Amino acid sequence: MAKTGISPTRSEDYPGWYQQIVRSADLAENSPVRGCMVIKPWGYALWENMQRVLDEMFKETGHENAYFPLLIPKSFLEKEAEHVEGFAKECAVVTHHRLEPGPDGGLVPAGKLEEPLIIRPTSETIVGYMFAKWIESYRDLPLKINQWCNVVRWEMRVRLFLRTAEFLWQEGHTAHATKDEALDETRLMLDVYAKFAEEYMAMPVVKGEKTEGERFPGADMTLSIEAMMQDRKALQAGTSHFLGQNFSKAQDIKYQNADGGESYAWTTSWGVSTRLVGALIMTHSDDDGLVLPPRLAPKHVVICPVVRKEEERAKVMEYCESLAKELADVQYDGKRIAVLVDDSDKRGGEKKWYHIKRGVPIRLEVGPRDIENDSLFVGRRDQPKSFGMPRTEFVERVSEILEEMQQGLFDKALKLRVDNTQQVNSFEEFKSFFAEKNAAKQEFHGGFAECYFVDCPEMDAMLVPLKVTPRCTPVDQDVEPGICIFTGKPTQTRGIFAKSY
Amino acid sequence: MAKTGISPTRSEDYPGWYQQIVRSADLAENSPVRGCMVIKPWGYALWENMQRVLDEMFKETGHENAYFPLLIPKSFLEKEAEHVEGFAKECAVVTHHRLEPGPDGGLVPAGKLEEPLIIRPTSETIVGYMFAKWIESYRDLPLKINQWCNVVRWEMRVRLFLRTAEFLWQEGHTAHATKDEALDETRLMLDVYAKFAEEYMAMPVVKGEKTEGERFPGADMTLSIEAMMQDRKALQAGTSHFLGQNFSKAQDIKYQNADGGESYAWTTSWGVSTRLVGALIMTHSDDDGLVLPPRLAPKHVVICPVVRKEEERAKVMEYCESLAKELADVQYDGKRIAVLVDDSDKRGGEKKWYHIKRGVPIRLEVGPRDIENDSLFVGRRDQPKSFGMPRTEFVERVSEILEEMQQGLFDKALKLRVDNTQQVNSFEEFKSFFAEKNAAKQEFHGGFAECYFVDCPEMDAMLVPLKVTPRCTPVDQDVEPGICIFTGKPTQTRGIFAKSY
Repeated sequence: MAKTGISPTRSEDYPGWYQQIVRSADLAENSPVRGCMVIKPWGYALWENMQRVLDEMFKETGHENAYFPLLIPKSFLEKEAEHVEGFAKECAVVTHHRLEPGPDGGLVPAGKLEEPLIIRPTSETIVGYMFAKWIESYRDLPLKINQWCNVVRWEMRVRLFLRTAEFLWQEGHTAHATKDEALDETRLMLDVYAKFAEEYMAMPVVKGEKTEGERFPGADMTLSIEAMMQDRKALQAGTSHFLGQNFSKAQDIKYQNADGGESYAWTTSWGVSTRLVGALIMTHSDDDGLVLPPRLAPKHVVICPVVRKEEERAKVMEYCESLAKELADVQYDGKRIAVLVDDSDKRGGEKKWYHIKRGVPIRLEVGPRDIENDSLFVGRRDQPKSFGMPRTEFVERVSEILEEMQQGLFDKALKLRVDNTQQVNSFEEFKSFFAEKNAAKQEFHGGFAECYFVDCPEMDAMLVPLKVTPRCTPVDQDVEPGICIFTGKPTQTRGIFAKSY
Repeated sequence: MAKTGISPTRSEDYPGWYQQIVRSADLAENSPVRGCMVIKPWGYALWENMQRVLDEMFKETGHENAYFPLLIPKSFLEKEAEHVEGFAKECAVVTHHRLEPGPDGGLVPAGKLEEPLIIRPTSETIVGYMFAKWIESYRDLPLKINQWCNVVRWEMRVRLFLRTAEFLWQEGHTAHATKDEALDETRLMLDVYAKFAEEYMAMPVVKGEKTEGERFPGADMTLSIEAMMQDRKALQAGTSHFLGQNFSKAQDIKYQNADGGESYAWTTSWGVSTRLVGALIMTHSDDDGLVLPPRLAPKHVVICPVVRKEEERAKVMEYCESLAKELADVQYDGKRIAVLVDDSDKRGGEKKWYHIKRGVPIRLEVGPRDIENDSLFVGRRDQPKSFGMPRTEFVERVSEILEEMQQGLFDKALKLRVDNTQQVNSFEEFKSFFAEKNAAKQEFHGGFAECYFVDCPEMDAMLVPLKVTPRCTPVDQDVEPGICIFTGKPTQTRGIFAKSY
C-alpha cells in the first residue's frame, strides 16, 4: 500500500481523517474555551478569500454592509414565538457587567443586568427592530443589508468548522414591498450561493427547498444548497429564508404605500458561514492532505529552492526570486498569482509534504541544474507525479493549468455525486440504500436517495430511526405524478434524502 | 449669518454638532441595546476602506490574520494582575448557556456555567495561551498575528464611534525572541498607524509614549498617536504596547534558544478601532456636514442629473451614465474612482445637501444645457461655490483635484494643531492655558500644552482638578535639560498635555 500523507485515510476512519486534514494543514484548532475554535492564518486566509468573492457578489446584487450589536435583549428574541423556540436551548446569556472581588478572594460576576442579554445566534430580531425605525414609506424599500460577524450557538459536540459554538458568517437581511419581490430575493441569493459554491469552491450543489421540519425557525420557506461530501453524507452549505410577514408583524415593520395605506413589509434573510471551509475540505481533500480549488487558494504557487551546497545558495535564491516576480505579474481569475518562496530550513521531503498537506495547488522545485536548463520541476496537487517543464512554458501556461485544476476538482466532485445518487421507489429500497449498501465501509453513508414524498409528520417519524433527513426538494425538477414512498399518498414532489452533517 | 447644513454649529455646541454630523451623514445610530451602536452602510463603508488600507499595511509588514474566541474564561483574565484590574470593572459576563421557561411564563437563564466567561475586552490572555502552545523554539519566532473583531468594554456614557460598549477593531499580537526586536515591532506599528492617520485620514498626529498612569494594563510601555480635534481636545487614535515579558511569564510563553536553553518570549500588542471614524469626523467636518478625505471616501464623485422636463430625462440619464463610466476608468490612489449616479426623486436642493452632509468629495450637476456645452457644474466639498468646467478637463483633472483636496485637509488640520500648541513654562501658565484662554467659548479646550515634566503621582494629582491628562512624550524631541512645571524637579522630558476624548 502506498504511503499517504494523512493517517488515518478516508476509508479507514473518515472523521479521524478530517481532523488530521485540519490539523496538518494548520487551518484551525480547538481553543480552551469549550466549543470555540481558533482559526489559524492558513485557514483564515481561505475564509478571507471566500469573504472577498462573496462580498463582491453581494454588492453587485445591490446589498450594502452594515453592523448591528452583538448583544440582543432577551425580550427581542421572545417576540417571534417559533424563532425563540428554535434558539433558546443554545443561547449564551450575559447576566452581569463587571467582576468584583468575591468572598474567596477570586473575582465574581457583579452588576446584574435588569434584562439578560443574549449573544446573537442570528440577528433577525435586532435588525428587524432597526428596519422598523428606518422604513417609513415604499420609497425606503427594498432595503438590502448584509452583515459580516460572529455568532454563538451553544454547542457541546464540536467539529472544527462544521459545528462550533462560535462561528463567523455573513447574514443578509432584506425588506420588500411585495411578496413576489421578497421571494425573488430569496431565490436570487440562493443562486448567488450556488454560483459561489460551484465556480469558486468547485463544489457542485443541489438547490432546493427545505421541508417544514427543517425550516429556519420563523421562516415561511427555507431554500438551501446541499453538497455531497466524500463520505456520501450531505452538507447544507448555505440557506436563504423567505420570512413572509412573520418578523415584520412581530416587530412592526410597516411602510406607507404609494396610495397612502399602510402595509407590513416582506422580509428575507440568508447566510453562509465558516462551515464552508469544512465543506471545502471534505469535498476535495485526499489521503495526502488538503486540496484547494485554485480560485480560493491563499497561495497558488510555492517555489522551493533546492540548495545542496552553501555556495549555490545566492544564485538559486536569486533565480527563485526573479521567477516569483515574473509569476506574480501573471493574472489568474482577475488577480495576480499569489506566489510564495519557501526558503525555510526544512529538508526537501519535509518541505514538499508541508505544502502538499496545506494544499498549495502548484509546487516548483528549483535547483542549480534546473537553472542551467532554464527548466522547473513542477508538482501539481492533483497529480501524483512531478514533471519537468521549461520555465517559459510554465509561466505562459500557469494560469491555464490552475483553471484546469479548478475544473478538474469540480468534475470529480460532480462525478462522485452522480455516482452516489439513486432514484428510490419504495421504502424497502430506501432502507437498504442507507442501511446495507455500504455495510463493509461503515464510514460511508449511502448517498443521495431521490424519491417521491409528501411532507408530513408520518414521514419524519419513519426517518428518525434511519438517521436520514430530507435534504431538499430540488428547485429544478419536472413535475410528474408519483407515489410517496413513505405514506403511499399520491404526490408530484421528489426530494433528496441523505444522512447529513 | 450664513445658513449652515448642520445645527448646532461647532462653536454653538460642539458635542451637539458631532451628534448631528453622525446623524445627518447616516453613519451610525444608537441601538436599543445600551452602549451598542448600529453602524449604517455609509459609516460601515468608511470603516471597510480603513480596514482595507490597514490590512494591506499589516500584511506588508509581515503579519498574518487569524481569529480567536470571543469568550475568555475568567481565570485567563485573572492571570495577569494589572490586566484584570484594568478590565474587571467593564466586563460583559456570560453565566448561562440556555434559556428556559421560568415561573412567570417568560424565559429565564438556565444551564449555569461552571466558570463564567468574559466577552473579550481585548485578547492578550487568550492569544497568549495559544502562543504558549504554538511556540516551541526560536525558529517559531517572531510570531506576528493580527485579528479583526468586535470587543466589549461595558460603558454607560455612550458617544457614537468615540465611546461604545461594543466596538470593532483590530488587535495585533506578536512574540519575539529578544527585547530589542519586540521594541522595534512596537515602534514599527506606531509608525504604521501614524502613516495611515496622516496619509489616508489626512489627520496629523503626534507619536509618543504614554506616562505610567496612562499605560495599557500589563504593558511596560505604551506608545500612542494623538490627534487634535477641532475643539482643541486630544484624541488617542491608536496604541502600540510593549508588553515586556509580563504576559509571557503569566502564561508561560517560552521558547528554546539556539543554544538549547529556555527563555520567555517578549510580546507586543497594538490596536486601532472604529473610534478612528469619530476622529475622522472631528478632524475635518464643518458646519455643513461630514467632510471625507478622498482616499477613504466610499464614493469620490456623485453625479446628479438635473431633469426639469420629463422628455429630457432619457438624454440626461444617458449622458450621466456615460460620464460615470468614463470616470470609473480613471485611477485615483491605485484604484478606480468610485462614482455614484443619484437618480433618486429628491429635489435639486435637497439632493445637493444630502451629498454635502455625507461628505462626498465632488458633486457634479448635469442638465440639458451642460450637455449641449459638454461641460459640468462642479461642487467641491472643500469649496463653498460650485463652478463650471469642460467635461474633458474634469475627467483629465479629477484625480489631481481629489489629491489636492486630500492634501488641503491635512494642511488645514496641521495648521489648527500648530496654532493651538503652546510651549508652557510654569504651572500658572498651564492653568491659564486650559482654564481661561477660551472662557468665552467653553466648548473649545485650550489645545496642546508642551512642557517639561517628571512622571510622578504628584503631577497626576495636580492634573485631576484641571481635567487635563498627559497625552504623550513625543518620540521625536531634542533632549535638553529643563524644569518640571509641576514639581520643580530637573528633567529632560517634554510632554504634550491636553483635555481629551
